[in-house]
Amino acid sequence: MEASQLERIAAQIQRSPFARSLGIRLEKLEEGHAVATMKVREDMLNFQGNPHGGAIFALADTAFGAAGNSHGTKAVALDMTISYVSAVEAGALLRAEAREESLGNRIGFYRITVTDQAGSLVANVQATVYRKREPLPGFDGS
Amino acid sequence: MEASQLERIAAQIQRSPFARSLGIRLEKLEEGHAVATMKVREDMLNFQGNPHGGAIFALADTAFGAAGNSHGTKAVALDMTISYVSAVEAGALLRAEAREESLGNRIGFYRITVTDQAGSLVANVQATVYRKREPLPGFDGS
Amino acid sequence: MEASQLERIAAQIQRSPFARSLGIRLEKLEEGHAVATMKVREDMLNFQGNPHGGAIFALADTAFGAAGNSHGTKAVALDMTISYVSAVEAGALLRAEAREESLGNRIGFYRITVTDQAGSLVANVQATVYRKREPLPGFDGS
Amino acid sequence: MEASQLERIAAQIQRSPFARSLGIRLEKLEEGHAVATMKVREDMLNFQGNPHGGAIFALADTAFGAAGNSHGTKAVALDMTISYVSAVEAGALLRAEAREESLGNRIGFYRITVTDQAGSLVANVQATVYRKREPLPGFDGS
Repeated sequence: MEASQLERIAAQIQRSPFARSLGIRLEKLEEGHAVATMKVREDMLNFQGNPHGGAIFALADTAFGAAGNSHGTKAVALDMTISYVSAVEAGALLRAEAREESLGNRIGFYRITVTDQAGSLVANVQATVYRKREPLPGFDGS
Repeated sequence: MEASQLERIAAQIQRSPFARSLGIRLEKLEEGHAVATMKVREDMLNFQGNPHGGAIFALADTAFGAAGNSHGTKAVALDMTISYVSAVEAGALLRAEAREESLGNRIGFYRITVTDQAGSLVANVQATVYRKREPLPGFDGS
Repeated sequence: MEASQLERIAAQIQRSPFARSLGIRLEKLEEGHAVATMKVREDMLNFQGNPHGGAIFALADTAFGAAGNSHGTKAVALDMTISYVSAVEAGALLRAEAREESLGNRIGFYRITVTDQAGSLVANVQATVYRKREPLPGFDGS
Repeated sequence: MEASQLERIAAQIQRSPFARSLGIRLEKLEEGHAVATMKVREDMLNFQGNPHGGAIFALADTAFGAAGNSHGTKAVALDMTISYVSAVEAGALLRAEAREESLGNRIGFYRITVTDQAGSLVANVQATVYRKREPLPGFDGS
Protein backbone atom coordinates (compact mmCIF):
# COMPACT_ATOMS: atom_id res chain seq x y z
CA MET A 1 0.00 0.00 0.00
CA GLU A 2 1.25 3.44 -0.81
CA ALA A 3 1.81 6.03 1.86
CA SER A 4 -0.81 8.26 0.29
CA GLN A 5 -3.44 5.56 0.73
CA LEU A 6 -2.62 5.12 4.40
CA GLU A 7 -2.88 8.86 4.79
CA ARG A 8 -6.34 8.79 3.27
CA ILE A 9 -7.42 6.03 5.65
CA ALA A 10 -5.92 7.93 8.58
CA ALA A 11 -7.80 11.04 7.55
CA GLN A 12 -11.08 9.11 7.46
CA ILE A 13 -10.47 7.62 10.89
CA GLN A 14 -9.62 11.02 12.32
CA ARG A 15 -13.05 12.23 11.26
CA SER A 16 -14.80 9.73 13.57
CA PRO A 17 -17.22 11.93 15.53
CA PHE A 18 -16.93 9.88 18.72
CA ALA A 19 -13.14 9.79 18.70
CA ARG A 20 -13.11 13.53 18.04
CA SER A 21 -15.48 14.22 20.90
CA LEU A 22 -13.09 12.38 23.22
CA GLY A 23 -10.07 14.23 21.87
CA ILE A 24 -8.52 11.01 20.58
CA ARG A 25 -5.63 11.54 18.19
CA LEU A 26 -4.44 8.93 15.74
CA GLU A 27 -0.67 9.27 16.09
CA LYS A 28 0.45 6.55 13.74
CA LEU A 29 -1.05 4.29 11.12
CA GLU A 30 0.69 1.52 9.25
CA GLU A 31 -0.78 -1.63 7.78
CA GLY A 32 -1.89 -3.68 10.77
CA HIS A 33 -0.51 -1.22 13.28
CA ALA A 34 -1.92 1.92 14.89
CA VAL A 35 -1.22 4.22 17.81
CA ALA A 36 -3.78 6.60 19.31
CA THR A 37 -3.61 8.91 22.32
CA MET A 38 -6.15 10.53 24.62
CA LYS A 39 -5.97 12.79 27.63
CA VAL A 40 -8.40 11.77 30.37
CA ARG A 41 -10.60 14.82 30.85
CA GLU A 42 -12.86 15.59 33.81
CA ASP A 43 -15.88 14.67 31.72
CA MET A 44 -14.50 11.14 31.24
CA LEU A 45 -14.63 10.15 34.89
CA ASN A 46 -16.98 7.64 36.47
CA PHE A 47 -18.96 8.21 39.64
CA GLN A 48 -16.02 7.01 41.73
CA GLY A 49 -13.88 9.83 40.30
CA ASN A 50 -11.72 7.49 38.21
CA PRO A 51 -11.49 7.39 34.42
CA HIS A 52 -14.58 5.61 33.12
CA GLY A 53 -13.82 2.18 31.76
CA GLY A 54 -15.80 3.15 28.68
CA ALA A 55 -13.43 6.00 27.90
CA ILE A 56 -10.34 3.79 28.19
CA PHE A 57 -12.07 1.20 26.04
CA ALA A 58 -13.00 3.81 23.43
CA LEU A 59 -9.34 4.76 23.05
CA ALA A 60 -8.30 1.11 22.63
CA ASP A 61 -11.18 0.53 20.24
CA THR A 62 -10.14 3.47 18.10
CA ALA A 63 -6.57 2.17 17.72
CA PHE A 64 -7.97 -1.29 17.01
CA GLY A 65 -10.41 0.05 14.43
CA ALA A 66 -7.61 1.95 12.73
CA ALA A 67 -5.39 -1.12 12.53
CA GLY A 68 -8.29 -3.30 11.43
CA ASN A 69 -9.25 -0.97 8.59
CA SER A 70 -5.67 -0.15 7.62
CA HIS A 71 -5.71 -2.47 4.62
CA GLY A 72 -8.44 -0.51 2.88
CA THR A 73 -11.07 -3.18 3.50
CA LYS A 74 -14.00 -2.45 5.76
CA ALA A 75 -13.62 -4.30 9.05
CA VAL A 76 -16.12 -4.53 11.91
CA ALA A 77 -15.45 -5.64 15.45
CA LEU A 78 -16.75 -9.04 16.54
CA ASP A 79 -15.34 -9.58 20.00
CA MET A 80 -13.21 -7.50 22.34
CA THR A 81 -11.92 -8.43 25.78
CA ILE A 82 -10.48 -5.73 27.98
CA SER A 83 -8.58 -6.35 31.21
CA TYR A 84 -8.21 -3.31 33.43
CA VAL A 85 -4.69 -3.84 34.72
CA SER A 86 -4.15 -0.71 36.76
CA ALA A 87 -6.02 2.42 37.72
CA VAL A 88 -5.13 5.80 36.26
CA GLU A 89 -6.03 9.27 37.38
CA ALA A 90 -7.89 12.13 35.78
CA GLY A 91 -5.52 14.09 33.59
CA ALA A 92 -3.52 11.03 32.55
CA LEU A 93 -2.29 10.94 28.97
CA LEU A 94 -3.09 7.48 27.61
CA ARG A 95 -1.61 5.75 24.60
CA ALA A 96 -3.17 2.76 22.85
CA GLU A 97 -1.14 0.64 20.48
CA ALA A 98 -2.86 -1.96 18.30
CA ARG A 99 -0.95 -4.73 16.60
CA GLU A 100 -2.30 -7.21 14.11
CA GLU A 101 -1.52 -10.74 15.21
CA SER A 102 -2.95 -12.44 12.15
CA LEU A 103 -4.87 -11.45 9.05
CA GLY A 104 -7.04 -13.76 6.99
CA ASN A 105 -9.45 -13.13 4.17
CA ARG A 106 -12.42 -12.62 6.45
CA ILE A 107 -11.02 -12.53 10.00
CA GLY A 108 -8.26 -10.51 11.67
CA PHE A 109 -6.87 -10.88 15.20
CA TYR A 110 -5.40 -8.02 17.24
CA ARG A 111 -3.83 -7.22 20.56
CA ILE A 112 -3.99 -3.72 21.97
CA THR A 113 -2.20 -2.29 24.98
CA VAL A 114 -3.09 0.93 26.77
CA THR A 115 -0.30 2.61 28.71
CA ASP A 116 0.05 5.86 30.60
CA GLN A 117 2.66 8.58 30.10
CA ALA A 118 5.11 6.68 32.35
CA GLY A 119 4.75 3.62 30.15
CA SER A 120 2.85 1.66 32.81
CA LEU A 121 0.32 -0.83 31.55
CA VAL A 122 -3.25 0.36 32.08
CA ALA A 123 -5.24 -2.16 30.03
CA ASN A 124 -4.80 -5.16 27.77
CA VAL A 125 -7.23 -5.87 24.97
CA GLN A 126 -7.65 -8.88 22.69
CA ALA A 127 -9.92 -8.31 19.72
CA THR A 128 -11.22 -9.81 16.50
CA VAL A 129 -12.62 -8.26 13.32
CA TYR A 130 -14.77 -9.53 10.54
CA ARG A 131 -13.67 -8.15 7.19
CA LYS A 132 -16.48 -7.32 4.82
CA ARG A 133 -16.13 -7.65 1.10
CA GLU A 134 -16.28 -3.88 0.82
CA PRO A 135 -13.47 -1.45 0.32
CA LEU A 136 -13.36 1.68 2.44
CA PRO A 137 -14.76 4.74 0.69
CA GLY A 138 -12.28 5.79 -1.96
CA PHE A 139 -10.67 2.34 -2.07
CA ASP A 140 -12.95 0.74 -4.57
CA GLY A 141 -10.21 0.07 -6.99
CA SER A 142 -11.19 3.07 -9.07
CA MET B 1 -30.79 -3.04 51.74
CA GLU B 2 -33.34 -0.30 52.15
CA ALA B 3 -34.82 1.47 49.17
CA SER B 4 -33.37 4.76 50.37
CA GLN B 5 -29.87 3.30 50.21
CA LEU B 6 -30.34 2.08 46.64
CA GLU B 7 -31.61 5.54 45.76
CA ARG B 8 -28.47 7.08 47.17
CA ILE B 9 -26.30 4.69 45.13
CA ALA B 10 -28.36 5.41 42.03
CA ALA B 11 -27.93 9.14 42.60
CA GLN B 12 -24.15 8.72 42.83
CA ILE B 13 -24.02 6.68 39.65
CA GLN B 14 -26.15 9.24 37.83
CA ARG B 15 -23.52 11.86 38.61
CA SER B 16 -20.86 10.00 36.60
CA PRO B 17 -19.50 12.72 34.31
CA PHE B 18 -18.83 10.34 31.42
CA ALA B 19 -22.26 8.71 31.57
CA ARG B 20 -23.84 12.17 31.73
CA SER B 21 -21.86 13.38 28.74
CA LEU B 22 -23.24 10.45 26.75
CA GLY B 23 -26.78 11.07 27.92
CA ILE B 24 -26.92 7.70 29.66
CA ARG B 25 -29.84 7.30 32.04
CA LEU B 26 -29.95 4.77 34.85
CA GLU B 27 -33.51 3.52 34.57
CA LYS B 28 -33.50 0.91 37.28
CA LEU B 29 -31.27 -0.19 40.12
CA GLU B 30 -31.78 -3.16 42.39
CA GLU B 31 -29.20 -5.22 44.21
CA GLY B 32 -27.27 -7.01 41.49
CA HIS B 33 -29.45 -5.67 38.70
CA ALA B 34 -29.40 -2.47 36.68
CA VAL B 35 -30.89 -1.06 33.49
CA ALA B 36 -29.49 1.95 31.64
CA THR B 37 -30.50 3.57 28.35
CA MET B 38 -28.77 5.78 25.80
CA LYS B 39 -29.77 7.35 22.52
CA VAL B 40 -27.07 7.06 19.87
CA ARG B 41 -26.28 10.66 18.94
CA GLU B 42 -24.47 11.88 15.85
CA ASP B 43 -21.38 12.56 17.94
CA MET B 44 -21.20 8.87 18.91
CA LEU B 45 -20.58 7.55 15.43
CA ASN B 46 -17.38 6.05 14.12
CA PHE B 47 -15.72 6.93 10.85
CA GLN B 48 -17.87 4.39 9.01
CA GLY B 49 -21.00 6.25 10.13
CA ASN B 50 -22.08 3.52 12.56
CA PRO B 51 -22.36 3.84 16.32
CA HIS B 52 -18.85 3.65 17.76
CA GLY B 53 -18.16 0.41 19.59
CA GLY B 54 -16.85 2.50 22.45
CA ALA B 55 -20.21 4.22 22.91
CA ILE B 56 -22.11 0.93 23.00
CA PHE B 57 -19.54 -0.43 25.41
CA ALA B 58 -19.84 2.64 27.64
CA LEU B 59 -23.57 2.06 28.01
CA ALA B 60 -23.04 -1.61 28.91
CA ASP B 61 -20.24 -0.64 31.28
CA THR B 62 -22.46 1.86 33.06
CA ALA B 63 -25.19 -0.72 33.68
CA PHE B 64 -22.52 -3.19 34.80
CA GLY B 65 -20.91 -0.64 37.12
CA ALA B 66 -24.30 0.16 38.64
CA ALA B 67 -25.08 -3.51 39.30
CA GLY B 68 -21.56 -4.15 40.60
CA ASN B 69 -21.72 -1.27 43.07
CA SER B 70 -25.34 -1.87 44.03
CA HIS B 71 -24.44 -3.56 47.31
CA GLY B 72 -22.80 -0.43 48.68
CA THR B 73 -19.29 -1.88 48.37
CA LYS B 74 -16.84 -0.31 45.95
CA ALA B 75 -16.34 -2.56 42.94
CA VAL B 76 -13.90 -2.13 40.07
CA ALA B 77 -13.96 -3.87 36.71
CA LEU B 78 -11.37 -6.55 36.04
CA ASP B 79 -12.34 -8.07 32.70
CA MET B 80 -15.07 -7.36 30.18
CA THR B 81 -15.77 -9.18 26.94
CA ILE B 82 -18.12 -7.60 24.44
CA SER B 83 -19.52 -9.35 21.37
CA TYR B 84 -21.04 -7.05 18.78
CA VAL B 85 -23.99 -9.12 17.67
CA SER B 86 -25.68 -6.78 15.26
CA ALA B 87 -25.24 -3.31 13.86
CA VAL B 88 -27.46 -0.41 14.88
CA GLU B 89 -28.03 2.94 13.31
CA ALA B 90 -27.55 6.46 14.47
CA GLY B 91 -30.56 7.56 16.45
CA ALA B 92 -31.16 4.13 17.95
CA LEU B 93 -32.33 4.02 21.54
CA LEU B 94 -30.24 1.39 23.30
CA ARG B 95 -30.98 -0.40 26.55
CA ALA B 96 -28.39 -2.24 28.63
CA GLU B 97 -29.44 -4.66 31.32
CA ALA B 98 -26.89 -6.04 33.75
CA ARG B 99 -27.54 -9.11 35.86
CA GLU B 100 -25.37 -10.47 38.61
CA GLU B 101 -24.61 -14.12 38.00
CA SER B 102 -22.69 -14.69 41.22
CA LEU B 103 -21.44 -12.58 44.10
CA GLY B 104 -18.56 -13.53 46.37
CA ASN B 105 -16.69 -11.62 49.04
CA ARG B 106 -14.15 -10.25 46.62
CA ILE B 107 -15.36 -11.19 43.14
CA GLY B 108 -18.64 -10.69 41.30
CA PHE B 109 -19.66 -12.06 37.89
CA TYR B 110 -22.11 -10.34 35.53
CA ARG B 111 -23.79 -10.71 32.17
CA ILE B 112 -25.03 -7.66 30.32
CA THR B 113 -27.17 -7.48 27.21
CA VAL B 114 -27.61 -4.44 24.98
CA THR B 115 -30.78 -4.31 22.92
CA ASP B 116 -32.39 -1.75 20.64
CA GLN B 117 -35.89 -0.30 20.86
CA ALA B 118 -37.29 -3.29 18.94
CA GLY B 119 -35.78 -5.64 21.50
CA SER B 120 -33.18 -6.98 19.06
CA LEU B 121 -29.88 -8.04 20.56
CA VAL B 122 -27.08 -5.57 19.79
CA ALA B 123 -24.30 -6.77 22.08
CA ASN B 124 -23.54 -9.37 24.73
CA VAL B 125 -21.10 -8.65 27.53
CA GLN B 126 -19.58 -10.92 30.16
CA ALA B 127 -17.81 -9.09 32.97
CA THR B 128 -16.11 -9.51 36.33
CA VAL B 129 -15.54 -7.12 39.24
CA TYR B 130 -13.14 -7.03 42.11
CA ARG B 131 -14.79 -5.79 45.29
CA LYS B 132 -12.62 -3.59 47.44
CA ARG B 133 -12.94 -3.58 51.19
CA GLU B 134 -14.32 -0.06 50.98
CA PRO B 135 -17.90 1.08 51.23
CA LEU B 136 -19.20 3.59 48.73
CA PRO B 137 -19.20 7.16 50.02
CA GLY B 138 -22.00 7.48 52.55
CA PHE B 139 -22.06 3.71 53.18
CA ASP B 140 -19.37 3.56 55.82
CA GLY B 141 -21.58 1.98 58.37
CA SER B 142 -22.40 5.31 59.95
CA MET C 1 -34.33 -29.32 9.60
CA GLU C 2 -35.66 -32.80 10.01
CA ALA C 3 -35.12 -34.76 13.18
CA SER C 4 -33.14 -37.37 11.27
CA GLN C 5 -30.66 -34.73 10.17
CA LEU C 6 -30.13 -33.51 13.72
CA GLU C 7 -29.60 -37.11 14.75
CA ARG C 8 -26.92 -37.49 12.11
CA ILE C 9 -25.17 -34.34 13.33
CA ALA C 10 -25.46 -35.52 16.93
CA ALA C 11 -23.94 -38.86 15.95
CA GLN C 12 -21.00 -37.11 14.31
CA ILE C 13 -20.39 -34.92 17.34
CA GLN C 14 -20.53 -37.92 19.64
CA ARG C 15 -17.67 -39.45 17.71
CA SER C 16 -15.32 -36.61 18.68
CA PRO C 17 -12.27 -38.44 20.05
CA PHE C 18 -11.48 -35.77 22.63
CA ALA C 19 -15.03 -35.53 23.93
CA ARG C 20 -15.14 -39.34 24.13
CA SER C 21 -11.87 -39.51 26.02
CA LEU C 22 -13.35 -37.14 28.60
CA GLY C 23 -16.57 -39.11 28.84
CA ILE C 24 -18.60 -36.17 27.55
CA ARG C 25 -22.15 -37.06 26.54
CA LEU C 26 -24.25 -34.99 24.18
CA GLU C 27 -27.62 -35.11 25.92
CA LYS C 28 -29.61 -32.89 23.62
CA LEU C 29 -29.24 -31.26 20.23
CA GLU C 30 -31.64 -28.87 18.58
CA GLU C 31 -30.91 -26.14 16.07
CA GLY C 32 -28.89 -23.57 17.97
CA HIS C 33 -29.17 -25.42 21.25
CA ALA C 34 -27.17 -28.20 22.85
CA VAL C 35 -26.67 -29.81 26.25
CA ALA C 36 -23.66 -31.93 27.18
CA THR C 37 -22.65 -33.56 30.47
CA MET C 38 -19.38 -34.77 31.98
CA LYS C 39 -18.38 -36.35 35.27
CA VAL C 40 -15.18 -34.88 36.67
CA ARG C 41 -12.84 -37.85 36.95
CA GLU C 42 -9.66 -38.07 38.99
CA ASP C 43 -7.61 -37.73 35.82
CA MET C 44 -9.20 -34.33 35.15
CA LEU C 45 -7.81 -32.60 38.22
CA ASN C 46 -5.16 -29.92 38.29
CA PHE C 47 -2.15 -29.90 40.58
CA GLN C 48 -4.19 -28.18 43.31
CA GLY C 49 -6.59 -31.14 43.34
CA ASN C 50 -9.45 -29.20 41.72
CA PRO C 51 -11.04 -29.89 38.35
CA HIS C 52 -8.68 -28.54 35.69
CA GLY C 53 -10.00 -25.41 34.00
CA GLY C 54 -9.23 -27.08 30.71
CA ALA C 55 -11.59 -29.95 31.44
CA ILE C 56 -14.46 -27.63 32.35
CA PHE C 57 -13.72 -25.59 29.25
CA ALA C 58 -13.70 -28.72 27.07
CA LEU C 59 -17.20 -29.58 28.22
CA ALA C 60 -18.47 -26.06 27.46
CA ASP C 61 -16.66 -26.10 24.14
CA THR C 62 -18.29 -29.38 23.17
CA ALA C 63 -21.80 -28.05 23.84
CA PHE C 64 -20.89 -24.86 21.97
CA GLY C 65 -19.48 -26.81 19.02
CA ALA C 66 -22.63 -28.91 18.87
CA ALA C 67 -24.90 -25.85 18.85
CA GLY C 68 -22.66 -24.06 16.36
CA ASN C 69 -22.69 -26.96 13.92
CA SER C 70 -26.35 -27.83 14.48
CA HIS C 71 -27.48 -26.18 11.25
CA GLY C 72 -25.46 -28.56 9.09
CA THR C 73 -22.90 -25.91 8.16
CA LYS C 74 -19.32 -26.27 9.32
CA ALA C 75 -18.58 -23.77 12.08
CA VAL C 76 -15.25 -23.06 13.73
CA ALA C 77 -14.64 -21.21 16.99
CA LEU C 78 -13.16 -17.73 16.80
CA ASP C 79 -13.26 -16.43 20.36
CA MET C 80 -14.33 -17.89 23.67
CA THR C 81 -14.34 -16.22 27.06
CA ILE C 82 -14.78 -18.36 30.15
CA SER C 83 -15.43 -17.00 33.64
CA TYR C 84 -14.86 -19.50 36.43
CA VAL C 85 -17.69 -18.58 38.74
CA SER C 86 -17.33 -21.19 41.45
CA ALA C 87 -15.15 -24.14 42.30
CA VAL C 88 -16.34 -27.70 41.99
CA GLU C 89 -14.98 -30.90 43.38
CA ALA C 90 -13.72 -34.09 41.86
CA GLY C 91 -16.63 -36.36 41.12
CA ALA C 92 -18.99 -33.52 40.25
CA LEU C 93 -21.41 -34.13 37.41
CA LEU C 94 -21.28 -31.06 35.18
CA ARG C 95 -23.82 -29.93 32.61
CA ALA C 96 -23.11 -27.43 29.85
CA GLU C 97 -25.93 -25.78 27.98
CA ALA C 98 -25.21 -23.74 24.85
CA ARG C 99 -27.72 -21.30 23.41
CA GLU C 100 -27.44 -19.46 20.14
CA GLU C 101 -27.91 -15.76 20.69
CA SER C 102 -27.73 -14.76 17.05
CA LEU C 103 -27.02 -16.45 13.74
CA GLY C 104 -25.82 -14.70 10.61
CA ASN C 105 -24.57 -15.98 7.29
CA ARG C 106 -20.97 -16.14 8.44
CA ILE C 107 -20.98 -15.44 12.18
CA GLY C 108 -22.88 -16.95 15.10
CA PHE C 109 -22.92 -15.82 18.74
CA TYR C 110 -23.44 -18.13 21.72
CA ARG C 111 -23.70 -18.17 25.47
CA ILE C 112 -22.91 -21.31 27.41
CA THR C 113 -23.45 -22.02 31.09
CA VAL C 114 -21.85 -24.82 33.07
CA THR C 115 -23.71 -25.95 36.18
CA ASP C 116 -23.22 -28.74 38.69
CA GLN C 117 -25.73 -31.40 39.73
CA ALA C 118 -27.27 -28.99 42.27
CA GLY C 119 -27.84 -26.44 39.50
CA SER C 120 -25.20 -24.06 40.85
CA LEU C 121 -23.39 -21.98 38.28
CA VAL C 122 -19.81 -23.17 37.71
CA ALA C 123 -18.79 -21.21 34.63
CA ASN C 124 -20.14 -18.74 32.11
CA VAL C 125 -18.89 -18.71 28.54
CA GLN C 126 -19.44 -16.26 25.71
CA ALA C 127 -18.36 -17.50 22.30
CA THR C 128 -18.37 -16.76 18.59
CA VAL C 129 -18.14 -18.99 15.51
CA TYR C 130 -17.18 -18.40 11.94
CA ARG C 131 -19.34 -20.38 9.57
CA LYS C 132 -17.53 -21.80 6.59
CA ARG C 133 -19.22 -22.21 3.27
CA GLU C 134 -19.02 -25.97 3.72
CA PRO C 135 -21.74 -28.36 4.76
CA LEU C 136 -20.95 -30.97 7.38
CA PRO C 137 -20.16 -34.38 5.92
CA GLY C 138 -23.39 -35.84 4.63
CA PHE C 139 -25.05 -32.44 4.39
CA ASP C 140 -23.95 -31.49 0.95
CA GLY C 141 -27.42 -31.07 -0.32
CA SER C 142 -27.42 -34.53 -1.80
CA MET D 1 12.77 -16.88 45.07
CA GLU D 2 15.41 -19.55 45.07
CA ALA D 3 15.79 -21.94 42.19
CA SER D 4 15.00 -24.86 44.47
CA GLN D 5 11.63 -23.34 45.29
CA LEU D 6 10.74 -22.92 41.63
CA GLU D 7 11.73 -26.51 41.08
CA ARG D 8 9.38 -27.60 43.81
CA ILE D 9 6.53 -25.62 42.24
CA ALA D 10 7.37 -27.05 38.83
CA ALA D 11 7.31 -30.55 40.26
CA GLN D 12 3.87 -29.95 41.76
CA ILE D 13 2.51 -28.61 38.49
CA GLN D 14 3.93 -31.56 36.59
CA ARG D 15 1.88 -33.86 38.78
CA SER D 16 -1.40 -32.36 37.52
CA PRO D 17 -3.39 -35.43 36.47
CA PHE D 18 -5.14 -33.68 33.59
CA ALA D 19 -1.95 -32.18 32.16
CA ARG D 20 -0.30 -35.59 32.46
CA SER D 21 -3.16 -37.33 30.70
CA LEU D 22 -2.70 -34.93 27.79
CA GLY D 23 1.05 -35.42 27.72
CA ILE D 24 1.67 -31.76 28.56
CA ARG D 25 5.23 -31.01 29.58
CA LEU D 26 6.24 -27.97 31.60
CA GLU D 27 9.41 -26.93 29.80
CA LYS D 28 10.27 -23.81 31.73
CA LEU D 29 9.18 -22.06 34.90
CA GLU D 30 10.34 -18.71 36.15
CA GLU D 31 8.50 -16.22 38.32
CA GLY D 32 5.65 -14.97 36.16
CA HIS D 33 6.77 -16.94 33.13
CA ALA D 34 6.11 -20.48 31.95
CA VAL D 35 6.42 -22.57 28.81
CA ALA D 36 4.55 -25.83 28.24
CA THR D 37 4.38 -28.14 25.23
CA MET D 38 1.94 -30.75 23.97
CA LYS D 39 1.76 -33.01 20.96
CA VAL D 40 -1.72 -33.19 19.46
CA ARG D 41 -2.64 -36.84 19.62
CA GLU D 42 -5.40 -38.63 17.71
CA ASP D 43 -7.49 -38.73 20.87
CA MET D 44 -7.45 -34.92 21.05
CA LEU D 45 -9.34 -34.32 17.83
CA ASN D 46 -12.86 -32.99 17.47
CA PHE D 47 -15.55 -34.47 15.27
CA GLN D 48 -14.30 -32.44 12.31
CA GLY D 49 -10.90 -34.15 12.58
CA ASN D 50 -9.12 -31.03 13.86
CA PRO D 51 -7.50 -30.57 17.25
CA HIS D 52 -10.28 -29.96 19.77
CA GLY D 53 -10.38 -26.38 21.01
CA GLY D 54 -10.50 -27.78 24.52
CA ALA D 55 -7.15 -29.50 24.09
CA ILE D 56 -5.46 -26.34 22.81
CA PHE D 57 -7.06 -24.41 25.65
CA ALA D 58 -5.85 -26.97 28.21
CA LEU D 59 -2.27 -26.46 27.08
CA ALA D 60 -2.58 -22.67 27.34
CA ASP D 61 -4.30 -23.01 30.69
CA THR D 62 -1.51 -25.19 32.03
CA ALA D 63 1.17 -22.63 31.10
CA PHE D 64 -1.01 -19.89 32.57
CA GLY D 65 -1.58 -21.84 35.79
CA ALA D 66 2.15 -22.45 36.12
CA ALA D 67 2.97 -18.75 35.68
CA GLY D 68 0.14 -17.71 37.98
CA ASN D 69 1.27 -20.03 40.78
CA SER D 70 4.98 -19.39 40.24
CA HIS D 71 5.25 -17.02 43.19
CA GLY D 72 4.33 -19.73 45.68
CA THR D 73 0.88 -18.24 46.35
CA LYS D 74 -2.20 -20.19 45.34
CA ALA D 75 -3.83 -18.58 42.32
CA VAL D 76 -7.13 -19.50 40.67
CA ALA D 77 -8.33 -18.50 37.23
CA LEU D 78 -11.11 -15.92 37.01
CA ASP D 79 -11.44 -15.16 33.31
CA MET D 80 -9.77 -16.47 30.18
CA THR D 81 -10.36 -15.40 26.59
CA ILE D 82 -9.00 -17.55 23.81
CA SER D 83 -8.86 -16.52 20.15
CA TYR D 84 -8.29 -19.38 17.73
CA VAL D 85 -6.00 -17.70 15.23
CA SER D 86 -5.20 -20.55 12.90
CA ALA D 87 -5.98 -24.20 12.49
CA VAL D 88 -3.44 -26.91 13.23
CA GLU D 89 -3.35 -30.52 12.30
CA ALA D 90 -3.25 -33.74 14.25
CA GLY D 91 0.32 -34.51 15.20
CA ALA D 92 1.29 -30.86 15.63
CA LEU D 93 3.68 -30.04 18.46
CA LEU D 94 2.25 -27.04 20.26
CA ARG D 95 4.03 -24.66 22.60
CA ALA D 96 2.29 -22.33 25.03
CA GLU D 97 4.15 -19.45 26.61
CA ALA D 98 2.57 -17.50 29.47
CA ARG D 99 3.81 -14.08 30.51
CA GLU D 100 2.72 -12.11 33.52
CA GLU D 101 1.65 -8.64 32.47
CA SER D 102 1.01 -7.34 35.97
CA LEU D 103 0.95 -8.74 39.50
CA GLY D 104 -0.95 -7.22 42.40
CA ASN D 105 -1.67 -8.48 45.88
CA ARG D 106 -4.85 -10.22 44.88
CA ILE D 107 -5.01 -10.06 41.09
CA GLY D 108 -2.58 -11.05 38.33
CA PHE D 109 -2.92 -10.46 34.57
CA TYR D 110 -1.41 -12.73 31.90
CA ARG D 111 -1.07 -13.15 28.18
CA ILE D 112 -0.45 -16.56 26.67
CA THR D 113 0.42 -17.46 23.11
CA VAL D 114 0.17 -20.90 21.55
CA THR D 115 2.40 -21.57 18.56
CA ASP D 116 3.18 -24.60 16.43
CA GLN D 117 6.56 -26.12 15.68
CA ALA D 118 7.08 -23.64 12.81
CA GLY D 119 6.49 -20.75 15.21
CA SER D 120 3.14 -19.85 13.65
CA LEU D 121 0.56 -18.39 15.98
CA VAL D 122 -2.23 -20.84 16.78
CA ALA D 123 -4.05 -19.09 19.62
CA ASN D 124 -3.90 -15.97 21.76
CA VAL D 125 -5.15 -15.99 25.32
CA GLN D 126 -5.72 -13.18 27.80
CA ALA D 127 -6.30 -14.31 31.38
CA THR D 128 -6.70 -13.16 34.96
CA VAL D 129 -6.08 -14.87 38.30
CA TYR D 130 -7.29 -14.25 41.80
CA ARG D 131 -4.56 -14.88 44.34
CA LYS D 132 -5.73 -16.50 47.53
CA ARG D 133 -4.09 -15.75 50.84
CA GLU D 134 -2.74 -19.29 50.88
CA PRO D 135 0.74 -20.48 50.07
CA LEU D 136 1.15 -23.49 47.85
CA PRO D 137 1.79 -26.73 49.77
CA GLY D 138 5.32 -26.55 51.14
CA PHE D 139 5.43 -22.74 50.87
CA ASP D 140 3.93 -21.87 54.19
CA GLY D 141 6.83 -19.78 55.29
CA SER D 142 8.32 -22.64 57.23
